[in-house]
Amino acid sequence: MAIPYPHFIGSEKLAMEKGILVPSPSSSSSPSVILTQDELKKIAAYKAVEYVESGMVLGLGTGSTAKHAVDRIGELLRQGKLKNIVGIPTSKKTHEQAVSLGIPLSDLDSHPVLDLAIDGADEVDPYLNLVKGRGGSLLREKMVEGACKKFVVIVDETKLVEYLGGSGLAMPVEIIPFCWKFTAQRLQDLFEDSGCVAKLRTFGEKGEPFVTDNGNYIVDLYFKKDIGDLKIASDAILRLAGVVEHGMFLDMATTVIIAGELGVAVKNK
Amino acid sequence: MAIPYPHFIGSEKLAMEKGILVPSPSSSSSPSVILTQDELKKIAAYKAVEYVESGMVLGLGTGSTAKHAVDRIGELLRQGKLKNIVGIPTSKKTHEQAVSLGIPLSDLDSHPVLDLAIDGADEVDPYLNLVKGRGGSLLREKMVEGACKKFVVIVDETKLVEYLGGSGLAMPVEIIPFCWKFTAQRLQDLFEDSGCVAKLRTFGEKGEPFVTDNGNYIVDLYFKKDIGDLKIASDAILRLAGVVEHGMFLDMATTVIIAGELGVAVKNK
Repeated sequence: MAIPYPHFIGSEKLAMEKGILVPSPSSSSSPSVILTQDELKKIAAYKAVEYVESGMVLGLGTGSTAKHAVDRIGELLRQGKLKNIVGIPTSKKTHEQAVSLGIPLSDLDSHPVLDLAIDGADEVDPYLNLVKGRGGSLLREKMVEGACKKFVVIVDETKLVEYLGGSGLAMPVEIIPFCWKFTAQRLQDLFEDSGCVAKLRTFGEKGEPFVTDNGNYIVDLYFKKDIGDLKIASDAILRLAGVVEHGMFLDMATTVIIAGELGVAVKNK
Repeated sequence: MAIPYPHFIGSEKLAMEKGILVPSPSSSSSPSVILTQDELKKIAAYKAVEYVESGMVLGLGTGSTAKHAVDRIGELLRQGKLKNIVGIPTSKKTHEQAVSLGIPLSDLDSHPVLDLAIDGADEVDPYLNLVKGRGGSLLREKMVEGACKKFVVIVDETKLVEYLGGSGLAMPVEIIPFCWKFTAQRLQDLFEDSGCVAKLRTFGEKGEPFVTDNGNYIVDLYFKKDIGDLKIASDAILRLAGVVEHGMFLDMATTVIIAGELGVAVKNK
């Protein structure tokens, strides 16, 4: 069942509460201040960190939104407002960030159950299913966030979609490099009815394959239409030999915090 | 539906046909010659190569049984009895063997559909489902053999089991190295009711992790009991983030050739 759209808290009040600098209203009739996308991300991130309590084992997300949450956790630790936190980073990048902030770290082998994870998402549908991994860390994120009692997702309102893939942006799939063209073609064929186009993710001027923290490649799937039942789609992708993991996070988020021009909304599962 | 046990062809006649040296009968009353396990593997492999025709794109298996088939294909090419074969190797090891035999090679990217693959298996159940990968090449094997019109499996009779896992030997799962203990524990928990024990595959005196051609680890699962519906088990394994692929090959074999003391049996799907 879809969760009804929640009540928004005024963004101006929140921005002030969080000490975030906001530009002046563009006109006197404007109902709220105008915030940049990054400011919205920061508001959502700070709101999520309110769920953190001393003594927790925490999954630390990856990406531009999650980065604000990790920064905030570091700040609260320094201020002594949080104590005895153990962080489990979801990428090498977040690991480095957390180390630089002095957040004590561990891993899933030592802490197979986490109290809470906070992370961003690339898309959120009305059922709180997610697309993640445009940053390339989907596999470690899925391992960590699948082991959490609570998983708080933080997004700005541009990430809300009617159905996964609906933003027209990529749904990433991590695959092994061996015969990647073959696997990419099979992925595209799988969603032929949805007008799927599969593209290897590359970087740099030479267009070299992007390599994940696990030494794999990413194939980005673009859809023209809804792909239908997500659990069926998930199993079909995972059954392809050569696929390691995909970026759909189904039935995993317990809370989604959405920062928008009108304020912050909180959706619970 | 289980396929009824087929008629055996006498092993002595076959061994003679294939030019395989066999030891003398142990006693005059013995109904057949006594063959070593390797000789049985060779008989099955040679029988499978009878399915190969000139012009075919061929999947070349990995392991002690498949090695005989690859050798035989090389021999027939040299003798001019086979022509225009393109081989797709299922491992770096088989790649090297095929190169040394002068078999022309390609890959799945160039040949996404194969005419035939020949490979061994570690277990074969009455429905022609397989366990493969004790040699460590399960992922590439599954990619290649999943792309074949015909998949001929060659085994000696010790590989026949009532149910997969029934030999008490390993059912391998390829996983990413990141937090492997966590993934191994989750695999073991998944099959708790079947008395599953999960062990990281290691090699050498120091017990270092065995690394696959794809840079991953192998966790071997040992079961005390039948794991039930194999398709359900397969999906459950693949849904674990951290799992790349498993060694159950379900509904893939089209023919199984079994060499035993009483001769060679051929089972078709």
